[in-house]
Amino acid sequence: MILTKERKSLEPRITLVGAGPGDPDLLTIKAANALKTADVVLYDALVNEDILEAYAPKDAIKVYVGKRSGEHSHPQNVINKLMVDYALNYGHVVRLKGGDPFVFGRGYEELDFAAGYNIPTSVIPGLSSSISVPGLQQIPVTHRGLSESFWVVTGTTASGALSNDLYEAARSKATVVVLMGLGKLGEIAKLFQNEGKGRLPVAVIQSGSTKEEKLAIGVVDTIEEVVLEQKIQSPALLIVGDVVSLHPSFQPIKNFYKLLDQEF
Amino acid sequence: MILTKERKSLEPRITLVGAGPGDPDLLTIKAANALKTADVVLYDALVNEDILEAYAPKDAIKVYVGKRSGEHSHPQNVINKLMVDYALNYGHVVRLKGGDPFVFGRGYEELDFAAGYNIPTSVIPGLSSSISVPGLQQIPVTHRGLSESFWVVTGTTASGALSNDLYEAARSKATVVVLMGLGKLGEIAKLFQNEGKGRLPVAVIQSGSTKEEKLAIGVVDTIEEVVLEQKIQSPALLIVGDVVSLHPSFQPIKNFYKLLDQEF
Repeated sequence: MILTKERKSLEPRITLVGAGPGDPDLLTIKAANALKTADVVLYDALVNEDILEAYAPKDAIKVYVGKRSGEHSHPQNVINKLMVDYALNYGHVVRLKGGDPFVFGRGYEELDFAAGYNIPTSVIPGLSSSISVPGLQQIPVTHRGLSESFWVVTGTTASGALSNDLYEAARSKATVVVLMGLGKLGEIAKLFQNEGKGRLPVAVIQSGSTKEEKLAIGVVDTIEEVVLEQKIQSPALLIVGDVVSLHPSFQPIKNFYKLLDQEF
Repeated sequence: MILTKERKSLEPRITLVGAGPGDPDLLTIKAANALKTADVVLYDALVNEDILEAYAPKDAIKVYVGKRSGEHSHPQNVINKLMVDYALNYGHVVRLKGGDPFVFGRGYEELDFAAGYNIPTSVIPGLSSSISVPGLQQIPVTHRGLSESFWVVTGTTASGALSNDLYEAARSKATVVVLMGLGKLGEIAKLFQNEGKGRLPVAVIQSGSTKEEKLAIGVVDTIEEVVLEQKIQSPALLIVGDVVSLHPSFQPIKNFYKLLDQEF
């Protein structure tokens, strides 16, 4: 590899940056500026590569350390070590993660590891898909009269089992947003059914804010079927709660259940 | 008022935009671009006016329709009407709200009102302070081994009473983030104390991401006192949960309780 860039005073530093849900324009101005001064970018699977194209210097080293749910190409300890090695050898490392780095992003583990080497770190938050992806579909996570709170839970825990928090969330009146939960949609639907919430509105949104965006909308009892019909794939998020009924696509479903109730 | 701008084809439209937590650089690129094409900007109290300075056209009409907790200078129905009137008379209205427009922002009510006049609307999400303000302090809302979920609740409901969801949140294992809750800090602390969580770490962050940023850190039992000492004022958010113990300022508190436990 030929170094095309002069190395002046090498100051190792790491900026942990949230890339947002996918659309490069949903990056913050601060994140774009950080990328412009990157010597190295370490980026995840959920990061849109157009962002690198648009903002990272041409001669910056770009390393894909992607992790998708299911696929673990680089274990966390390898990513940590890469990040520190690059900072010590090349200067400014931008660690670019999809969404926000602290929403199931293991961002703190990376900061903590860097601190062990006395490398200065800073954080630039990103738009978490948990709020922004429903929002782009004009589904508000909170709405007067429908929801006074929202609860964001992961569908994929370290152990592989459903998070205990999800059991509690299904019982609560919060809008429930589940990230990385598509693979467990059946189990998750069952939790809500067990609480007598089979008719609670649900939306599943694939690749929110990108060209691949797809929406499946239904109720807890029907959502698995709709997701199959629409061929929804990962990455996708689930949003469960009455706020989903505000989406225009929910109107026919509402009418259907009204009719059904009249017939019995 | 002299109109310095030619009015070509007038196309009423409304863009609901999240301005993020305060730092103008934490605006998204998409939001900055929307502001550049605004004929009118209606903005809230929590929006940093530097954002208007930086991105809105000089000749755009800027209307402050601020609402702070406690102060209700413009009732919601007046804001709705202003927004629609400006769109019909001037074209592109950017409705700029602090944080994300759907996190206790009443954004959907405004979209719904505009829809009643057949005015096209779009949404540009913003960084919600609920995630980004703790994140800037390097407090992650989730962290392996400490928290598998986070629950965002308002401290100020329409009725003035504490949200029922807050009672449930205090019982849960989720990281709990309370927005607009500083005025009820005592009542909120009591909810956690009633669940035997007097020693759960808490941070209160004022004006996150701005020059006025201030942090108070403690446990449920002590946080009111620390907030008084630090003279924390609104706007401020509360974050309650073990993730707060990751902040460097928590170390002396941890040591104090260790010592205390040894003495008894």
